[in-house]
Amino acid sequence: MNKLLVFRLAGFILLLEAAAMCLPLAVSLVYQQYDYLAFLMSIGITGSVGAILWLLTRKSEKHNIYAREGFMVVGLSWVLISAFGALPYYLSGAIPTYVDSLFECISGFSTTGATILREIETMPKGLLFWRSFTQWIGGMGVLILFMALLPTIGMRGQNLMKAESPGPSPGKLVPRLAGTAKRLYAIYTGMTAVMVVALLLAGQPFFDALCNAFATAGTGGFAITNTSIGQYQSPAVEYIIAIFMLLFSVNFTMYHLVLTKKWLSITSNTELKYFGAIVFAAVMLIWINIGSTVSYAEGFRHSLFQVASIMSSSGFSTTDYNTWPDFSRFILVALMFVGACGGSTGGGIKVSRIVILFKSLHREIKKIVHPRSVPIIRVDGKALEEQIIANVPLFFVAYIMVIALSTLLITWDNLGFTTSLTAVIACVGNTGPGLDLVGPMGNYAMFSPFSKIVLSVCMLIGRLEVFPILVLLVPTAWRRH
Amino acid sequence: MNKLLVFRLAGFILLLEAAAMCLPLAVSLVYQQYDYLAFLMSIGITGSVGAILWLLTRKSEKHNIYAREGFMVVGLSWVLISAFGALPYYLSGAIPTYVDSLFECISGFSTTGATILREIETMPKGLLFWRSFTQWIGGMGVLILFMALLPTIGMRGQNLMKAESPGPSPGKLVPRLAGTAKRLYAIYTGMTAVMVVALLLAGQPFFDALCNAFATAGTGGFAITNTSIGQYQSPAVEYIIAIFMLLFSVNFTMYHLVLTKKWLSITSNTELKYFGAIVFAAVMLIWINIGSTVSYAEGFRHSLFQVASIMSSSGFSTTDYNTWPDFSRFILVALMFVGACGGSTGGGIKVSRIVILFKSLHREIKKIVHPRSVPIIRVDGKALEEQIIANVPLFFVAYIMVIALSTLLITWDNLGFTTSLTAVIACVGNTGPGLDLVGPMGNYAMFSPFSKIVLSVCMLIGRLEVFPILVLLVPTAWRRH
Repeated sequence: MNKLLVFRLAGFILLLEAAAMCLPLAVSLVYQQYDYLAFLMSIGITGSVGAILWLLTRKSEKHNIYAREGFMVVGLSWVLISAFGALPYYLSGAIPTYVDSLFECISGFSTTGATILREIETMPKGLLFWRSFTQWIGGMGVLILFMALLPTIGMRGQNLMKAESPGPSPGKLVPRLAGTAKRLYAIYTGMTAVMVVALLLAGQPFFDALCNAFATAGTGGFAITNTSIGQYQSPAVEYIIAIFMLLFSVNFTMYHLVLTKKWLSITSNTELKYFGAIVFAAVMLIWINIGSTVSYAEGFRHSLFQVASIMSSSGFSTTDYNTWPDFSRFILVALMFVGACGGSTGGGIKVSRIVILFKSLHREIKKIVHPRSVPIIRVDGKALEEQIIANVPLFFVAYIMVIALSTLLITWDNLGFTTSLTAVIACVGNTGPGLDLVGPMGNYAMFSPFSKIVLSVCMLIGRLEVFPILVLLVPTAWRRH
Repeated sequence: MNKLLVFRLAGFILLLEAAAMCLPLAVSLVYQQYDYLAFLMSIGITGSVGAILWLLTRKSEKHNIYAREGFMVVGLSWVLISAFGALPYYLSGAIPTYVDSLFECISGFSTTGATILREIETMPKGLLFWRSFTQWIGGMGVLILFMALLPTIGMRGQNLMKAESPGPSPGKLVPRLAGTAKRLYAIYTGMTAVMVVALLLAGQPFFDALCNAFATAGTGGFAITNTSIGQYQSPAVEYIIAIFMLLFSVNFTMYHLVLTKKWLSITSNTELKYFGAIVFAAVMLIWINIGSTVSYAEGFRHSLFQVASIMSSSGFSTTDYNTWPDFSRFILVALMFVGACGGSTGGGIKVSRIVILFKSLHREIKKIVHPRSVPIIRVDGKALEEQIIANVPLFFVAYIMVIALSTLLITWDNLGFTTSLTAVIACVGNTGPGLDLVGPMGNYAMFSPFSKIVLSVCMLIGRLEVFPILVLLVPTAWRRH
């Protein structure tokens, strides 16, 4: 274990975070609100700690990064940027306790969108901007950031790749990793910009359009209003956000393929087909189920918006889906599990894994009927490696176990079975809102500080797809070998 | 696919069922109640169909049974004995609809113990006896029955073994399978007899003692009173039943080891250790959690009884645990998933599988930290085959998928999120009661006929450990190859 290198990169990421905080500082200065002081202090603290870590670890510079260091760097980076990113909320006094500030910040970076705020609109603009901006940063993830920037500080980071699977998947688009990372950022920024323009055209103020686009691009779902997107009372805004939520749920490789005009690779993509089929089925079933209470047009709009919001793991809402019948509510909870496509900014288990799980089960049944056959599992027309097929069910098991254990821990608060269970599912899936007390009109304020810490860990576990955070908890990983 | 043989064995099992119905007929005649006529008709119908199937398929006699036929025979046998076993309830008019009768019968044979009866005590004694007796039959399962009896009709049944894993596991105790099956029945009958005596000594009437012992031995949990075991107001009865529920949750091989005095094999059994640890932890946590509302002694008794009841997948109750805090309720739901030991009469995922899942996850994390190591997973001191290790997560996936899909189907009834979810968990786990409306003081009467059929299929899927029932649903399995 090369600890010096791990801390060096942690210092590097804190310096970047301090730089990122200058944007909300600027917002705060423009609106002349009280939170500018908190940003100044936060930038000072974060920048100093980053600089100290960076300078103290100069000796490590020549080393390469191996898989183990990769997991450590990524896991530790997420913990650190959350710990320091919480400072503006806490130092400004806008969020009275540090645990709540940390929860809100992890919810942002992990693109979950669960909030402990009861009154969102009274927050100063700088903090609202920081809240949305953390989701944009978190959407692309620490990994792609490292990959784009490591060569500029003289390091290579192939082995980081294994540590953070969600976020656009690297290593495929162009020959060099740094080039791929930069291209992904270009696609991400470009799509965000298009969305801002679309929202402006639909009549949103610039600040709202920017914040909503950040939260949509990262599939985070932090709104800057108390009743989320429903507040705008604008079908145009709702359709724009619904469509972009779906666009950001798709593997970013697709957009590279669009840019290079490889249409066949797009139309033959297995995951994309299943993604489309699941969205279509869910929208139709919910539309039918809620049909009697609203008009056809409104029912379709709410159904589409909510399915896009939950499946992309955003968590925006246009209506209180908590009042929908159980059938629709359960579909939404199931979609929290499924999540978006791999290589997108969305959370959940990912459609690609669900496809592999179903194909594995189908194969298992065929094996019973025809014991001597050894069917191959194909994705995108190619046979999948058995090692990958074997890992997916284990990932699923880990995912469910994390949910079970975390739910057990937070049920001590006694806030209701559905509330506790869906809170954990929504946090691990990086969705945000769940059902009952944590429904779209509720929030996470009433949980105990202990439960908030448990749920914060859940959000990180979900964002990093379980194993990197579990590795941090294994003591032997920290020893030299 | 040797269809003739499958139908021949199905006929054989129906003849056995007709014979089994003579016992409740006798009870009915002793108590001189109206249900004797229903039993006479049921015996006539079941026996006739069985005899016709048996006689029409004489040509198949010489064939051996292969794995595929094994799955078919076991799956079909469960469906048929349920379909015909429901006749007494329906023909007597005690349960007005056939769907409800079928639900009650499948609940019995699958040892689930979920009931659609609102008023249990007004049922005639013969039907109450049949209800409990189906749980005793189902506890040991169709498989062991076949194995014990097939040699007497000139067939061998090794390949049936793969089709029905729950129920005491065969093939280990004595050299010949039929001998093992008979020995398992001897242990089962002997333990049931001891329990009847214990309940008689604790003051129960003979009929109650017999019915309760049947339902406990099969880990079924059908009580013959409206408020389950709580009705007797007897701590002695509660402790006896709690202890026997735990005893019947243990792999029956242990009792063979006791009889042959192989003490070391018992104390070094991995699954038994984990089983004990989980029971201990669950009892303590619930005891602490409910501590403030009852006396220490009562709290311990309720906690022990309920943990034993749920973990063994019985489903008896001594108190309305639905009023307990969320923490305790969630532990009980988690125990529904875990279930009993493999090779017992209990349901759920089974402790042995949970152990393998945790060891697999631990290995996965170790692999990340030390990529070149290939750790072996040991159970009972022996290295486990990789094929078995790979199948367990897939079983878990299938288990969860069945729960998710079934819950989706029954949420259409709109009876509440917790009710729907825990109803399915309790049916697939063969536990019986869940939370909220299907809690220990509730029942399954309010579900729609469609949901009752879904839940019935869930009970069978759970009892046969998922895959045999899924095979029945694959059309190619029925074709000749």
